[in-house]
This record gives sequence, structure tokens and C-alpha cells, in this order.
Amino acid sequence: MSAAGRKQPMGKKERKIGVGLIGPGVIGGQVARVLLEKGELLAERAGCPLVLRRVMGLPSDLERPLAGQLPPGVMTTDIDEFFAAPGMDIIVEVIGGQEPAREYQRRALAAGKHVVTANKEVIAKHGVELLALARRHGVSLNYEGSVGGGIPLIAPFKRDLVANKIQGIYAIINGTTNYILTRMAREGTDFAAALALAQELGYAEADPENDIQGIDAAYKLAILATLAFQTRVRPEDIHREGISHLSGRDFRYARELGFVIKLLAIAKQSDRAIEVRVHPVFLPEDSFLGKVDGVYNAVLVEGDLVGKVLFVGQGAGPLPTSSAVVADIISAARDIILGTRETPWQPADGYAIRPIAEIETRYYLRLSAADQPGVLAQIARVFGDLSISIASAIQQDTDRDTRTAEIVIMTHPAREQAMQLALGRLEKLSVVAEISNFIRVEDI
Amino acid sequence: MSAAGRKQPMGKKERKIGVGLIGPGVIGGQVARVLLEKGELLAERAGCPLVLRRVMGLPSDLERPLAGQLPPGVMTTDIDEFFAAPGMDIIVEVIGGQEPAREYQRRALAAGKHVVTANKEVIAKHGVELLALARRHGVSLNYEGSVGGGIPLIAPFKRDLVANKIQGIYAIINGTTNYILTRMAREGTDFAAALALAQELGYAEADPENDIQGIDAAYKLAILATLAFQTRVRPEDIHREGISHLSGRDFRYARELGFVIKLLAIAKQSDRAIEVRVHPVFLPEDSFLGKVDGVYNAVLVEGDLVGKVLFVGQGAGPLPTSSAVVADIISAARDIILGTRETPWQPADGYAIRPIAEIETRYYLRLSAADQPGVLAQIARVFGDLSISIASAIQQDTDRDTRTAEIVIMTHPAREQAMQLALGRLEKLSVVAEISNFIRVEDI
Repeated sequence: MSAAGRKQPMGKKERKIGVGLIGPGVIGGQVARVLLEKGELLAERAGCPLVLRRVMGLPSDLERPLAGQLPPGVMTTDIDEFFAAPGMDIIVEVIGGQEPAREYQRRALAAGKHVVTANKEVIAKHGVELLALARRHGVSLNYEGSVGGGIPLIAPFKRDLVANKIQGIYAIINGTTNYILTRMAREGTDFAAALALAQELGYAEADPENDIQGIDAAYKLAILATLAFQTRVRPEDIHREGISHLSGRDFRYARELGFVIKLLAIAKQSDRAIEVRVHPVFLPEDSFLGKVDGVYNAVLVEGDLVGKVLFVGQGAGPLPTSSAVVADIISAARDIILGTRETPWQPADGYAIRPIAEIETRYYLRLSAADQPGVLAQIARVFGDLSISIASAIQQDTDRDTRTAEIVIMTHPAREQAMQLALGRLEKLSVVAEISNFIRVEDI
Repeated sequence: MSAAGRKQPMGKKERKIGVGLIGPGVIGGQVARVLLEKGELLAERAGCPLVLRRVMGLPSDLERPLAGQLPPGVMTTDIDEFFAAPGMDIIVEVIGGQEPAREYQRRALAAGKHVVTANKEVIAKHGVELLALARRHGVSLNYEGSVGGGIPLIAPFKRDLVANKIQGIYAIINGTTNYILTRMAREGTDFAAALALAQELGYAEADPENDIQGIDAAYKLAILATLAFQTRVRPEDIHREGISHLSGRDFRYARELGFVIKLLAIAKQSDRAIEVRVHPVFLPEDSFLGKVDGVYNAVLVEGDLVGKVLFVGQGAGPLPTSSAVVADIISAARDIILGTRETPWQPADGYAIRPIAEIETRYYLRLSAADQPGVLAQIARVFGDLSISIASAIQQDTDRDTRTAEIVIMTHPAREQAMQLALGRLEKLSVVAEISNFIRVEDI
């Protein structure tokens, strides 16, 4: 039916587009509600009515309020029954996680059905194969909801910025960590307390590792970088550091130096190589991204023509994500009605991934050292020997009991490799008690 | 040729898409350069090569460097020769102004050619008719470059936000005025000096009326509101006030009260009516829009699902605008290759335009009054009689010579009609020397 519809578009009045939804959870439930409650608006914008034909859930989903709102026979817990249902043109997968989500997407695409998903893990890890499968079967795979909730981020790369050579992407793309960092900056809360508060308010999960280790941000960066550079970027290509080692002292020094601390996802290209990394950074406090606080997400894209463009919005939550998912459904419905589909992009492996050792940036370094004459000279010599230029060094807060002082150093741009060597040598100095932290500085 | 191409898409290798460009000025010249210099990238993204077949200019354009870079025979000054050239699938109109731009667009559409334009005046005034003409002839009319340079603003309404009921648009959408206001705020420069500086730096034109009176912003708002609400909003529907009456004193009080002053373009809907207005506003200094300075543009969109989404970027200039125009060209080229076109939106006249008298907002009011006991009581009575609640009233800066004091009043939300009545009554009070300024406050 869907294939026939593509080849011989029928009149608007004659057909309906069938939608099957897998995963009636928080996101899926909201998508279903939009489909049910905004039928008229969506029909007008898609070009014909959309019908929610089947919702596939777990037995426990039968207890959800949604189950009671669906017409009889729509809810099912049998995946074979789901796929066998007639008139299913578009399959929406919003269960999240890798399996069985990936298998369901494959099955839908192989059956010639358009797929819409908000699953960042599946797209980050398997998007290239799934898009190839979609291409072979003449259907579309839309995943706007997988990054940044309702903020348009996938579509701009596919359409609006297509004349640009993308130079860089700089993204605050995980609301949980941005909420925690905002609390730490504003109230001087330490990491553990800020995390506990985020969990209490529902901004962080009981198991927060995916967020605070930057894994979630890396999935999203892999998706954006793959699209922006038209080359395959895998999550494991991304250098990744989390936020749990940040302390209140780092925030205090950042503020004194005119910076804020954010978990930034960065993808930059130069000389046919791209660097992709997720880690805490110092950002100038008056920069666009430095001002994005709380659970907001922001993605700054730099292109050779457009210059800097910034997209900001709520990066998660059922309402914003449903905005993206339903837009993708309508896009697929238009493809079906008009008998066409978007030219799918085919990643060319044209770029090498630049090792983290080869990046160049400025650095903030905080260490504790013996409070005695000549210490700063010894430390400075380590940097000098490696041709790393120091922009400023401040010695603060002597601890009278241990006779150690805290030293904060800002460097000029330096190679990461040299900086890592310097850290190794500093650790070996007898006057250095501890390297407390080391944070990259991004001037954007 | 173009019509045949749409019905029977040919293989990628077999065809080229021909582009004709009208207006090789600053923008047009840059568009031509992108087409000439990025041929390979654009061919890959469009699906087939794009060929710049003709460039139509004035005799004076023959002296431009571009004329020398074009292959022989491409440059012409004869519009009939231009339209008669073979293989012109897409016509790009970037001359600006109303005529003959509008006539050229009509002629191209009527000849079954896809049209791409960055002409805000033509689209704001005649977009609905031109889109209907495009629909009748089975071609597309793309105008992303008409608003906000390279910032994606048109496409998000047509696709990404399509599941939303749009509640409001709040836009800093004129770079010239934002540059002037930023100068006035930061350096205390008065309006005339800030304008002169903007002119010197090329940010303002010799005749700045279109910008400083808000006419340019009103064109752009008409385009965005028409699309967002799917109803026709004409430039003359928009209540419009410029920035030339702002003084350094207003900026000083704004800062003291925690606000910044911006020229804002606003479109809001409620109760099947929309209010559309362009005027200076007080914005909270820590709001997203309040932080957008200099020549940057920013558009905040509020939708029922997506919440607040913000788009920021350079709103003008040849490079950013060429990013949008070339993306539109590629979009039209894909339509031709895939044998389809976007479902054009058809505005329904479903909304009434709300008269400015019926809007409700907070107000800032600055007046000079006799410095004598009981004055504030008289003024407060005027507001009280009209049920306008005063949030704060401060009396500052007595002028010893004239024995007048400056009084600054912030109201709670009030109806514009009541506020205008209050202004009329205040003017008649013998103790009021002058109503110096009156600025609406937007809390977004």
C-alpha cells in the first residue's frame, strides 16, 4: 500500500496515512496524544488524515491512561500482530535503548515502511546502516527528535545550511549536566548535592552515568557530526570526559577569570580531519553559549557562508520531543502523498578523526604545591621546556597546616600532547602535591 | 523543459539544472560566486550540477568584477533575452525593492520556472498572490533569504514546527537598529551619534528611514506571521513605532530597573486574534533576547509543544544571505529532480488582527513635572481612575532652573486603550510639563 501510494499518488481525499507506534511511554504517550487530539491540524498540514492504527507496548503499558483513550484493538503487546496490521505506512519507534529498538526499525524499513524515531543511541551507533536500508527500500528514516528535543537541528543540516562547508559545532546538548553545572555556578553547590537535587526534581535519572559521563552528549554529537561533515562519526570516535571531577573551586576561579564552565560537545574540521570531543570547558561568560543555563540546550553551528548560527530550546521532555517526532511523521506523510522521498545523504569517509593529542586549545590548570620560594619557577620551567606559553599564573589560598598553596595557571593555545607531557612532569615534581584539575578553554 | 523534467525525472547524470540570476549586486554577486566556486559540493547536495546560465543586470553592472568572472554570453542587460534563454529552470531574484522585482517574479512563475528570492518587500506585500501563482504553475517559490539572512526561519515554520500551534513570535530582526541601540546602551551615545557611527561603519544606509522607523522589521514580521499563523498579515496591519525618540535617559532608567531596550517585532495569537507590532520595548536584561547585541538577529518562537525555541545569527550581509538563497536553489533543484514540489501552504483568513488599543502589557513612562508637593498624587489619581495599577514610581533629577522633576513610572499589566487615555489626561494636567517617553515592557 505504501509502495503503491508512492508510485501513484492518490487524491488527497481518497487516502489516509496509517501510523504505528512502538513504545507508549512518556514520549510515545505524548506523540499518541498529539495524533489523537490535533487530527484536524495535522491532516491539513500533512495533506491527508493520519490514523494511529496500532500502538505496541509491554503488558505493563496496558495500565497506562493512554490505553484507555485508544479505540479498541489499537493497543497490542504482540510485535508480530503489530507488524501484520494493515495500512501501516509509518512506524514510530520511541522505546529508546539499543535493542529491540534497532531490530524493530530494521524490520519496519525492510517491510517498506517509513520510520520515525527519537532514539539517539540507535541512530548514533547504527544510523548509517539504517539509512542505507531505508534507501534500498525506498523509504525515509527521520530522527529529528533524537537530538535537542524540539529544536530543529537535523533538518537545518539537511536543508538550510546545505550550501555551507561546516567548520564547527559547539553544543550544550545535555540538559541534566547543564542543570547541575548551573546550580554549582550559581549557588556554589558541590557536585554531589547538585546531582541529588537534579534527581529530586526529575532532571537526572536514578542512574545518572549516561548523562554525567557525557555518553548521552556523545551520542548526540555523533549524530550531528555525521550529518554536518557527511562522514561517519561513531560514538567511540569521540574523546569524552564527564563532569563529576569539577569542584566549587573551579567555578570560583572561572568566575574570577571571566568564564563559566559548561559540558560542551565539540566537532571541528580543518585540513580534512575532524576533532570530536565532549568534556567540560571554560567559556567566556559573555559568549552566547556561556549564557545558556538550566535545562536548556543550545547548538552553535559555524559555516563558511552563514557564520555563526545558534539554536536554543528545551532539549528534552515529552512535549518538545513530540514536536519533532510529529513533524517527522508529517514529513514522511508528505513524502508518501507526493510520491517522493528526500535524497538520503550518503556519508563519504572523507575525513580522518584527529586524535585528542593533536588538538590545540588554551588550558586552565589548578594544582596544589608546596608554599615555598622557587616553586612557581620550577612549574614555569616545565611549561617553558615544552614551549607552552603561560598567560597568567595566580597563587592563592595557602593551607597553613599542610604548608601548600593553590596555583591556578591559564596557558596560551598549546597542543594537547605537550600539555599532557607537562602534566606528567608536574606530577613528578616533589614540590607539587596534587594536580587538582585541568580544563580546556574554548573561545567561541 | 522544466515541466517535462518534473513529470519524468531523468537520471542524475543526464541533466543539469539551469539557474538565471536577476540582480548581480552585493547579494547577487555573492550568490553567483557560490554557484561558480562550490559547483562540486552543490552538485552533490542537489543531486545534479547547477549551471548559472544567465545573469541579468543594469548596464552599470557590466563594470562589476563579477562580469569579468562569468563565461562569455552569461551576462545580459536585456530582460527579454534573459527570459528567452534556454534551460532556465530556476530564477533567482535579488534586486530588492518592489518593482520591477515583483514583475520579474510573476513573469518567471507564469513561465513555469521555480523562483528563489531574498526580497522581503515583495514577499511581505505580495507573497500570498505569488505563492498562488506558483501553485497554479506547479513550481515553488522559496524566500528563506528574505528574513534573517542565513538563519533558518522560513523552513522551520514550514516543516519543523508544523505540529505546533504557534503562540508567539518575538524577534530582533533589524541589525541596523540593534547595532544603534547596543551602542546607546553600552556607551551612552545619543541616537544621532549612534546612527552616524552605524552609517560610517556601513551598518546603516545613507537614508536610514526604512530601518529606524521599523519598516524593514515590519516587512519581515509580516512574512513570519503570515507563515506561522497561516493567515495573511499585511505590513499595514502591523502597529509600528521607530527608535528615533529614544534618549540616553531611557537607557539609564532601563538599566537601573533591570531592563534593556530593543526594537522588537511581536506577533502573538490568542482567542482567534493576532496582535502584530514593531516598537521599542523594555526586555528583562537576563532574558535570551535581551542578550542579543550588535548586528545579530534573533527570533524566539513559542509553540504549544516545543515551548520556546530561539534562533540567532547574522541577519544580513552577502555571505549569510547567500547561504539561504543557495539552500533555496538546491531545494528547488531537488524538487525538479525528484519530480515533486513542497505542498504550498494556503493562508486561511482565520484570524482577526487585534487593534493596538486592545493589547495588554506593562508600561514604562517617563515624564517631567513640577517639583512641588502633591504632584505624584495627581498623577497616581489619573492611573487609579483608569484602573491602571502602578508597580513603581521614582522621582529623580530635579532641574533647579525650571523647577521640574523627572518621574519614572512602571505599571502592572494594563490595556493599551486605558494607557492612551491616561497619557491624554496626564498631558492636560497643569503640573505635567512633558511626557518624555512611553515604552512597552515585554516579559519573555
